[in-house]
This record gives sequence, structure tokens and C-alpha cells, in this order.
Amino acid sequence: MRVQQVEMHVCSMARPSDTSEFAALLDSGAVDPASVVSLVGKTEGTGLHDDSGRELADLRLREVLGQRLGIHRDEVTGRVSMILSGGCYGVISPHVTVISRRWVEVAPAAAPTTPALVIGRAYSDDIFPEEIGRLGQIRTVAVAVRAAVADAGITDPADVHCVMVKGPSLSPASIRDAEARGQTVVTHDVSVGVSGAMCYANDGAALGVAVALGEVPESALSDAAVRRDWHLYSAVATTSAGGEKRHAEVLVLGNAAPSLSALRVGHGVIRDPIDVEGVKVALRSAGLAFGCCPSSEDQARIVQVFAKLVVPGSDMVRGRRITLREDATAYISAKAVGGVLVASVTGDPGVMVSGGEQNSHQGPPDGSPVAAVVRTG
Amino acid sequence: MRVQQVEMHVCSMARPSDTSEFAALLDSGAVDPASVVSLVGKTEGTGLHDDSGRELADLRLREVLGQRLGIHRDEVTGRVSMILSGGCYGVISPHVTVISRRWVEVAPAAAPTTPALVIGRAYSDDIFPEEIGRLGQIRTVAVAVRAAVADAGITDPADVHCVMVKGPSLSPASIRDAEARGQTVVTHDVSVGVSGAMCYANDGAALGVAVALGEVPESALSDAAVRRDWHLYSAVATTSAGGEKRHAEVLVLGNAAPSLSALRVGHGVIRDPIDVEGVKVALRSAGLAFGCCPSSEDQARIVQVFAKLVVPGSDMVRGRRITLREDATAYISAKAVGGVLVASVTGDPGVMVSGGEQNSHQGPPDGSPVAAVVRTG
Amino acid sequence: MRVQQVEMHVCSMARPSDTSEFAALLDSGAVDPASVVSLVGKTEGTGLHDDSGRELADLRLREVLGQRLGIHRDEVTGRVSMILSGGCYGVISPHVTVISRRWVEVAPAAAPTTPALVIGRAYSDDIFPEEIGRLGQIRTVAVAVRAAVADAGITDPADVHCVMVKGPSLSPASIRDAEARGQTVVTHDVSVGVSGAMCYANDGAALGVAVALGEVPESALSDAAVRRDWHLYSAVATTSAGGEKRHAEVLVLGNAAPSLSALRVGHGVIRDPIDVEGVKVALRSAGLAFGCCPSSEDQARIVQVFAKLVVPGSDMVRGRRITLREDATAYISAKAVGGVLVASVTGDPGVMVSGGEQNSHQGPPDGSPVAAVVRTG
Amino acid sequence: MRVQQVEMHVCSMARPSDTSEFAALLDSGAVDPASVVSLVGKTEGTGLHDDSGRELADLRLREVLGQRLGIHRDEVTGRVSMILSGGCYGVISPHVTVISRRWVEVAPAAAPTTPALVIGRAYSDDIFPEEIGRLGQIRTVAVAVRAAVADAGITDPADVHCVMVKGPSLSPASIRDAEARGQTVVTHDVSVGVSGAMCYANDGAALGVAVALGEVPESALSDAAVRRDWHLYSAVATTSAGGEKRHAEVLVLGNAAPSLSALRVGHGVIRDPIDVEGVKVALRSAGLAFGCCPSSEDQARIVQVFAKLVVPGSDMVRGRRITLREDATAYISAKAVGGVLVASVTGDPGVMVSGGEQNSHQGPPDGSPVAAVVRTG
Repeated sequence: MRVQQVEMHVCSMARPSDTSEFAALLDSGAVDPASVVSLVGKTEGTGLHDDSGRELADLRLREVLGQRLGIHRDEVTGRVSMILSGGCYGVISPHVTVISRRWVEVAPAAAPTTPALVIGRAYSDDIFPEEIGRLGQIRTVAVAVRAAVADAGITDPADVHCVMVKGPSLSPASIRDAEARGQTVVTHDVSVGVSGAMCYANDGAALGVAVALGEVPESALSDAAVRRDWHLYSAVATTSAGGEKRHAEVLVLGNAAPSLSALRVGHGVIRDPIDVEGVKVALRSAGLAFGCCPSSEDQARIVQVFAKLVVPGSDMVRGRRITLREDATAYISAKAVGGVLVASVTGDPGVMVSGGEQNSHQGPPDGSPVAAVVRTG
Repeated sequence: MRVQQVEMHVCSMARPSDTSEFAALLDSGAVDPASVVSLVGKTEGTGLHDDSGRELADLRLREVLGQRLGIHRDEVTGRVSMILSGGCYGVISPHVTVISRRWVEVAPAAAPTTPALVIGRAYSDDIFPEEIGRLGQIRTVAVAVRAAVADAGITDPADVHCVMVKGPSLSPASIRDAEARGQTVVTHDVSVGVSGAMCYANDGAALGVAVALGEVPESALSDAAVRRDWHLYSAVATTSAGGEKRHAEVLVLGNAAPSLSALRVGHGVIRDPIDVEGVKVALRSAGLAFGCCPSSEDQARIVQVFAKLVVPGSDMVRGRRITLREDATAYISAKAVGGVLVASVTGDPGVMVSGGEQNSHQGPPDGSPVAAVVRTG
Repeated sequence: MRVQQVEMHVCSMARPSDTSEFAALLDSGAVDPASVVSLVGKTEGTGLHDDSGRELADLRLREVLGQRLGIHRDEVTGRVSMILSGGCYGVISPHVTVISRRWVEVAPAAAPTTPALVIGRAYSDDIFPEEIGRLGQIRTVAVAVRAAVADAGITDPADVHCVMVKGPSLSPASIRDAEARGQTVVTHDVSVGVSGAMCYANDGAALGVAVALGEVPESALSDAAVRRDWHLYSAVATTSAGGEKRHAEVLVLGNAAPSLSALRVGHGVIRDPIDVEGVKVALRSAGLAFGCCPSSEDQARIVQVFAKLVVPGSDMVRGRRITLREDATAYISAKAVGGVLVASVTGDPGVMVSGGEQNSHQGPPDGSPVAAVVRTG
Repeated sequence: MRVQQVEMHVCSMARPSDTSEFAALLDSGAVDPASVVSLVGKTEGTGLHDDSGRELADLRLREVLGQRLGIHRDEVTGRVSMILSGGCYGVISPHVTVISRRWVEVAPAAAPTTPALVIGRAYSDDIFPEEIGRLGQIRTVAVAVRAAVADAGITDPADVHCVMVKGPSLSPASIRDAEARGQTVVTHDVSVGVSGAMCYANDGAALGVAVALGEVPESALSDAAVRRDWHLYSAVATTSAGGEKRHAEVLVLGNAAPSLSALRVGHGVIRDPIDVEGVKVALRSAGLAFGCCPSSEDQARIVQVFAKLVVPGSDMVRGRRITLREDATAYISAKAVGGVLVASVTGDPGVMVSGGEQNSHQGPPDGSPVAAVVRTG
């Protein structure tokens, strides 16, 4: 039988166009270029929609990989999930996590029975502008998430610990398109603000995850519930929305057997912006056993943490008012906060932390999702 | 004999002009207005030199206290050390810590012998523009720090855990004044940048503290050493520089006997921007006994943490490059980082964290000072 | 008969709390403190909702005026319209325009018959949160504008050239209040973004002006038209929305006879962000006769220009795409743009230019209102 | 004899990676790819050193040109001067000006005798870190400027109207290199602040231009004069400094005969940030005859304006204080101001305006250089 073996390597980047560590990784033979399934990373820049760091890194990383595969960088797009997030504020070190998956033929009797990291991928059908932030998007994403879970070889949704979704948002052009067809859109605000399309798109995707994993019954959902009923959420969805995308791209991380991976994934919830315990819960959930804080040896086993830091809907944290919700620079501060929260536990600034959304169905009300991948044995 | 009894209360502020909690504290009888010696706080705003939040809060807090004392708000200035820092980025909750000191007549035999919190204050002689960031400032501040240590009743400099200094910086006007008198100034850059007057002024003050406490021998100092020889530093100085000030104002926190305070102070060093252990060292140094992390009961005994988060001189943190040093918004990110580092340990966002300087003689190379006050018994 | 005589003086401010020029103006006898009806100005700071510069300047200006009137600064609020706008980006010089109005007894036969500057003021009834950005607000503001026009002694709406309105916006508290009473609100977004309450509040007020002046028939309006049908607008409204306000405050500037003022007002429209001609139209409309550009002598007669610079709804300007609409720092850039547009014509950086709203019913689609006051004779 | 014919085309860019108009220009046959000598443009982004928009645009533009030339994008670097400036704040429309130069064989008797646009290019010798902002850099740049003037076929320096220089700045690495060789550097501040290396590098280059053109006698210069004696300046230098550059790249624009260009260049000086007259002087200097303001027909003949908007050394403009000098966001505001100043005259937002330096030897004290290219006949 074919059994998957997943590996992750974190490569630092000296600037968005710096692919030297990534190239060296491929050229060292440690990772077969053909086995790369996803590049997940943080790039320097503002992290706003007009930050070209993401686009430059995306282009250069695909170029380097394409050269090894003998294909053009544009052909890499359909093969590898590119999930880059801009904004390395505070202590977040620019990097890319190279996720690779090999398929190994194993005699059924010899297949390992201990659950270990598996990944699955899927692309959704097209999502129309009029569906974004509404049931249409939710249902279409849910179908793709179920497919990705199946691709991962996971049968119990409880074994899924992280679902990354990248899908379409609204743009002036797509709004015009929808309205020309007699449709309405959920918002005319294309920003990342409280009523912005980015938030609606991210949250529609998050609810799609929640439905697929059974975290929310579809019957509880309606168009009106999106960005309103915050108790409907996925604890494992981290989603982002991009410009000209037409469909959603889904990457699922879970634990299952058989898997030849020497990695395990787990998750937790960051309940408020100072809840460092949420990060520890994720690490323990991934199998890292430690008392109050991980030791250096424990930290050496942490491969990567994937987290969001959502701006809470309430401005009260442990009885004190914070200003994040009203802060025009929250897109900076929220990432800086999330980065420290994670890196102060892992001891490594090369962490995958994004965020800054104003409340979200990613994670519970006022909270944020966090997943961790840990090396076993 | 007269023995001091220091108390600290943290009052939240809903906006820079909100003095309601402070007024209620005074009116409740919990704090005698005449006993207030310092107001130390964080105000909302950019934290840059043109942020009026500080000035507005300063005016309103003095007004409220002045009303209780029957004096004009302008007369309060000479009586009470006003140490307000702008910029509540991330999780830092706007607040003011009211520091009061009563003198109690105690029979010498009955005086407590366990060291507890004492505070001392002093004003330096005038500091001339040509002295700022040079030996002249350092020596003048050192004299004032020694006076404040004596005022606190501390005889061993090792018992000093926190020295706050607020003094003059350079302005276009003071530079013109110095040059008209045939003097030179250390810089023509009045910004907070790497070669800005704010940094020179803060660092001259920090070295003044270092000399007074014996952390640095005066013989090791020269004009050229300022903002260059980073291994010369004070581990307990947190300094700031303000507009039209002519002299430095010094507030010393230490432990000594006799003291009737139910508080103790301690300090630590934040060695890099993810070094949460530094905060814990400060709390333990103040007498809070806990294992890895403080429990809720432990947290309830923490009264306040006073910290800086200095941007490290190196961009490498635990083997990874961070971007803080090159980030035009480091004045935002650095404060956000420092706030989480402290609040994730104390469990309270009402913490006194400032910073953003590019390297500093406040704390060791790449590090930052942190002091904590904990309730005893 | 009683005839009004309006005067305007522009006082520079070295910082938000600097009232020295204003105090000197009052103390010189040039302006009777009792005749001051409005203080309209620009204060240093971010111009965002958490910029304390406005509040500090407001407090200090009222304090200075109150001292001359023998009343507390809080009593000044009900007497004088305080219209302060934060954000002096680019070339906008911090200042306050002191508007005073004296009533002079004149024999009817001796009353001047040439129309000259007259001002009128009014306060609206309370505006409820559920009315903001809807017909309720529009109608209530319209009533107040009509009252202010009458107070000015203007009978023909065509003689009105500038209507400043300051009224309530939505806040989390007022939204909760409305919903507790079973009402809905126009938006849950309290920001200044495309779908933010600030924009709805400013635009409801602008449409109130439009209705009162007959620029838009009330029959053309509906709740759905607000922030959608941009061809409904007032060419003379400049509106702002403030925190805890419950009612709207209206200041009308127009020309009428009899008036003893040595000033005239006019207005124009800035059709796009480089339309310097709009500023010239306003000056000519106010009676300044000049060819292409005003000479130094012409400029010396300009007393003040009151303008907005609204971010156009389209990103195309004269066939080229600009980025203002997508720029997270448009609140900076838009003001900088407006300031230069005006000051490059007037030759004086002490201009009253605010803006940064994303499209608006203030001025025509993509355009902005501009009014000018010029000294006659 | 060989006579040059220079052409300029302005291509809009929908985002930094959008090369569609540039590619169409090349593919239309209007411009021979081999004749392109320089691409000068504005790219979207922060305009700060970590803005990747410039790098992305640079890469894509070279790629498109390289494809037409049959060479790799990296080989384009040595052939074509790439002068891209980030930051399209306010009304500045993202674009690239394609400058091409053909050499046409003409019988000497038939060569036109009316001076028209000529361009010249040169590369300087290597500039060492210890030379930057000092006489070493000034002299090396001056040699290259003289070579570029000669390459342009200009004999009288008065015929030079615009000199663009792009050269090296200091970096942490180059500072370490210099100091390892026992050399000193002019500053340790690598920022763009008042005492930053970027300003020193730009100003050393500007003084190199001034020396080469005889605007400043070399005898008046010394290391100490740089960024101090502001009356030493070039009226035609616009300079920028880049990362890993080792030598300076010089592009000279002037008028001379014989030239087959249908273009003329001229220049003026923007004396303060509202001095719109300086832009008009540049246009008239280029041969555009108009009264007070250019008409639509006049505007149609304007091909491009190249300008800087330097933050004045004084904060007083026409008797009023402006805040640009103290503004942490001056890198935004200064560009927004410069853009409007130019575009309000040309009627076209596609203008090449950069700036934000704190005072400069580019242009007179408090002023900025501006050059214009106008179509003749």
C-alpha cells in the first residue's frame, strides 16, 4: 500500500526575493523538488493589499522550484499551494516552510499504526462574487475541505488540526460583474475593515471548514449569521483571501495511520491576545510533553507553529480596556502581538503568524486558532 | 523615627482625559492627595513627539490632584513626578500608576527590619544643551541619582531596582542657544532615530544612573563612549527625555529597612525581544516565589511592572533575522512586543511598558530593563 | 435696525495647547471676547479618532476665552461653535480662525445695501443613533440648517456659500442603546472606512444641508440613497461627526444685505484631486477679481479658505489611475493633497482643509466643496 | 555624422508587476527595444527601503525588455539605467517613462541647428564606503557627470537641465568592511533621517553634479560642508542611493545641436513646498510658452516632469509654521505635496516626483529641483 511521509523544513529569507536557503535545501537532496506540495511563509512588507513582497517572493520561489522541475514558474502555481502572508512586524522572522510529501510503498502488515502527520489538498469549484461571505461560498468550501480530508486519508474529523484555505475576495471588478448579472454582493467595502470583503471572504471560508468538520451544523447557518453569530466558528481554520482567485485552495493537516511522517500536528486556541497558554495547548496536543514551559530540548522538536491573531470583538481583556480594536495600525500591532505570544514559547522567531482581522469565525469569539507541528521520537 | 510607607494603585483611563478612576481613588480616602509623589502611566496616542495624549493626560491629572490640594495645576508640577509615556499599542491598557508615600512616626525599636519598598526623589541641576549625551549630562544626573538614593534611605546601591529619569533633550531652539554661545552639540538630529537627540539624552541619563550606582566606573566613560560602547550600561535605568525640560527629575525604587510598605521591588533583564524569562526574573527578584509561571494567586500579588523594550542593535535573535531594526514602524511594534512579553506573564494588560529606542545604555547590549513591584504577605 | 458685522482672524498655533496668539488677539482689543461665535481650526496630530490634539486645543481655547468672559471653560461650549479638525499633513499650518459677530444699531436708511458676509447658527434637536445615516438625521439637520439660514438673515438659499455641520456619529455605546430599544442602525462599523459610521454621519448631515437649501428634493431621498446615489449632494456642506454629541451644530456663511462686514464669502467645487481651478472659482465667487492666478495683492485680501478633499469614488483621474482609494494612509495623503491645492493658490499655509472620506455627499461625485472668505475694498 | 534622436513614452502600470503597456509599446514598433536607454518610474508601495514594489517592477520590466532583446533580465541591468522610485502617495499615478535614443546618420550640412533634447550616460568608478558623503564620492561622481555630459554631446554646462544619479549608500555590511580596513564612515545611521546615510549619499552625489557643472567650485567643498553648507547645491541634480551598488550611474538631460529629438528639456526650482511657480518656470524653460497657466493644448505638449520635493530645513513657509520637518510620516506627505504641485499644473497625474529627504544639496536651501520635457512643434 502507498503510505505518505510528510516533511517540513523552515528556510529563512533575507528579503522577499531571497531564495538561497530554499534553493540550497532542494539542491542538497534533502527534499525532492517533485515532492513539494506547499510553501507557507511570511514575507517582509506592510502585509496590506499593496505590499509587493508577497508577489515578489511568490514569483521567485516558484521560479527556483520550476527550474528544478524543468517547468515554467507559472506552471508551478497549479502544483504547489503558495500560502504567503506579508508583515513581519515585531519578532516574526521572514521565512518559508517547505512542506513535502512522499508516497512510499509499504507492505500492509508493515504499515505503522501510530497516527502521524498526514496532509491533504483540494481545489474547490469556482466561487462567484455574489456567493462570497454567504452560504454559497460556505457550501463550496465545505465540499473542498471534505475532499482534502479524504485526500489526507483522515476518516475522523477530530484528527484534523489545521485547515488552511486561500480563496477569492471581492474586487471592484468582480462586484461590477455580479451586479451586471443582476446579483447582489455582501458588501461594497473591499477593505480589510470590520465590514470589508476580506473579512467576509475569510469568514465564509472558515465557516466552510466548520461545516465540513462538523463543528457547526449547516442548519445553524444563514447568510445573516456570517460576521454576526460569533459562537459559530472553526477552531482549526486559518483562512486568507486573495485578489484574482476564482476558487478556493485547501490544505489540511491532521494525524492518521498509516503515516511514515516523523511529525505530529496539534492545535489549541488563543483565547485572548495575552493567552500564551493557548500556544502551549497546541504544542501538547501535537505530542510535546512538558510541564509549564518547554525546555530547550522540547523547543528543538518544534517544527512550526501556524497561528492567527484576530483582533477581539471586545476591547476588554482580563478586566482592562485595550485599544487594538480602534487602532488604525492594528494590522501592525496584532501581528506583533501574535508573533511574541508564539515565539516566547517556541524560542524561535521563524513562526507563521498572521492576523489582524476584526473578529472572525476563525477561532472562538475574541480568540484565534493556533496549530503546531512537532517532531516525534 | 519617621518611616516611609509606599503604596501603588493602578487606575485605568478610558481616554487621555479620563481621570475618573484617579479622582475616585483620591475621593475614596484610600490615598491622601498630599501623599502622591508620582504619577507614572501610559496614554493612548502615537507615542511620538507630536502626540498630544501625554500633554492632555498630564494637564487633567494635575488638575484633579490640584483641586484636592487647593493649588493650581501648574503648582503640582514641582511636587509630583509626572512620568507619562504615549503609545498603547497591542495589549497595553491605558492607565496611570499612582505612587504615594506617607511618613509614619515609629518608635525605633518597633521599626520593621525586613527590607521593603522605599522611594526617593531628586531634581538635578540644570543641564545645558552642549552637555546632553556627553559627560556633562552624565555627571549631573549621577549627582541627582545619588541624592534620590539617599532620599529613599538606601545605603547599598544593590538595593536599587528601578531608576526612572526624565530630563531635557535637544530642540532646534536649544541647539541655536548652545551654538550662539560658541558651544557644540552632540547631534543636529532631534529625532528618535539611531543618531537622534532623544537617544543621546536617554542614554546620557542612563549612564548617569550607571555611574551613581557603581555599575560603570566614571573612568570608563568619555563623550565618545556614549551610544557606542554598549557594554557600559545600567540594568535598572529607564529614562525618557522631554521637550522644554531644563533639569532631570529622578525617581528611585528600592528595598530597604525600615519601611512600612507592603510592597517589594525587584528587577531583571529582557535579554532579547522574546525573552519572557527576564520578566519572571524581575518578579522573583521582587519576592514572588513561583515555579515556571505565576499562578492566578501569584498574579494577584503583582502591582506593576515597569519595562522598556529596546530595539536590539543586532537583527539576529536566536539565529533568525528579525526586521525591527529596519522597520519604520518600530515605535509601534517594539511597544507591542514589550507589552505582550510582560502581560502574558502578569495576566494584566495594565502594564507600564515603553521603548522603541534603537539600542540603548538602558539594559545590556540588545537587552532591556524590567522592574516589578509585588505585594508582600 | 440691528445689523451684523462679521470679522475673521487667523491665529497660528505652535502646538495644540498654544493659545498665545488667540489670547493676544483678545487682549489687544481687536476682538471682543463676547463677540466670538466660532473657532474653526486645524490641530496637529494624526487626525484619527484617537488624536488628542483636537481635545487639548479645544480645552485650552475654551479656557482662554472663558477667562475673558468670566465663565468656566465648560460653559463656553454652548456659546461658541468649536470646529477643530486634526491632521496638519504636508503644508497645512496649525491655526485657528476666530469668527466674531457684532450687532450694530443702524438707521434703516443708512443700512448698507451691498450684500456682504453674514453668519447664522443653530442647534438641531437630538438625533437618535437609529436615525444616523438615514432620513431621520437628514430631516433633523435640514430643520436646523433652515434655522441657521434664517439666523443669518439670508432669504435666498443661493446666497449660502458654506454650511459647516458638526453632529453625532455612532459609537459602540449608542449602537447598544439603539438595539436595546429594538431599533436597527445603519452600520456596525464605527470606523471612517467606506462603510463606517463616520461617513454615514457626515453624509446624512450633508444631505440635510442639501435638502434645506433645495439642492436635493426631499422626495429624491430614501435611506437606501445614502452613500449610494452620489449625484445627490450639497455643493456647500462641509460636515464632521464627533464622539458623544447628541445634536448637530450648524454654522452658515453667506452674503446678504444689510451687513456691515468687510468680508464676502464664495464657493466652488474641487472636481478632482488636482483641480486647482475649483479653488480659484471659490475665490472669484467671493469677489476676488483676478486673471489666471491671484497676485500677492490679491492674496493679501484672502482671509480664509474652508475646504474638504474627499477621496474620489473612482481611481481614475484625467485618464490615469491614482492609488488614493486603496491607500491605508489616505487619511494622511488626502489632507496633504488638499492643503497644497489650496495653499498653492492662496500663498498661505494657514488654510482650513480637512477630508479623507471615501466619497461623500459633500460635493459632487469624486469632488469636494471649497469656500473662500475675502476682504472687500 | 551620427545625430541622436531621443524619445520618451509614459506607460501606466496597474501594479508593480504590470508591464502590459510597456510590452505593448515595444511590440507596436513605436520603440525599438534596442534603443531603450533608461526606464524611469514610480512604483506603488511605501517607498521605504523595505518596499518590494521597486524590486518587483525592476525585475519584470527587465524581463520584458530582455525577452525582446534575446538576453536574460540580469544582462539588461548593465545596458539600461533603471531609475525607479517607490511611493505613489496622493495623486501620483504609477508609471514608467521609457527613454529611448536612436542614432541617425545625417549629412553634416543637413544636421539641425536648433538645440533639442540630448541625453548622455556614464558609470563612475567604484565608490568606497569611506568616501560616501565626503569629497571622495563628490570627486568620483563629478568625473562621471563630465563623461555623461560629453556623451550627450553637450559642451556648455548651462545646457544641462537634469542630472539623475543613482549610486551606493552605506549598509551595515559596507560599514563593517570599511572599518575592518581601518577607515571611518561619515555616519553609522543607515536610515533616511537627518543624519542618515541615504541623505549623505544623495547629497554627495548632488555635490558631484554641482562640481562637474561648475555650480560649486571644488575649492568651496570639504567633508565638513556636506549636509551643512546648504548654499552649496546643484539646481539640476536629482539623486538616489541604493543598496548593493558599488558605483554611480549617471543620466544627463540637456539641449544641444545637432539633435533630431522633437523634445526639449528645461528646469526650475521649487522654492518652498507651495511654490507652484517653480514648476511653471521649468516648463517655460523647456520652451512651453504660456501666460499664467498652461492651457489644455499646452498641457498636451508636456511629456514628463522630473521633480523632488525636499523637506525644507526651516519649518516656516511664507510666515507660517508647517509640520513636515517633525512629521514621522513626511516620507508620505512630502511626496503627496510634490505630486499635486506638479500635476495641478500639468493636468496629468503620471508625474515623476520623489523626495522626502530632510533638506538637501539637491536644489537651493529649502527648495527642490524640477525639470520638464516638452514636445516641440
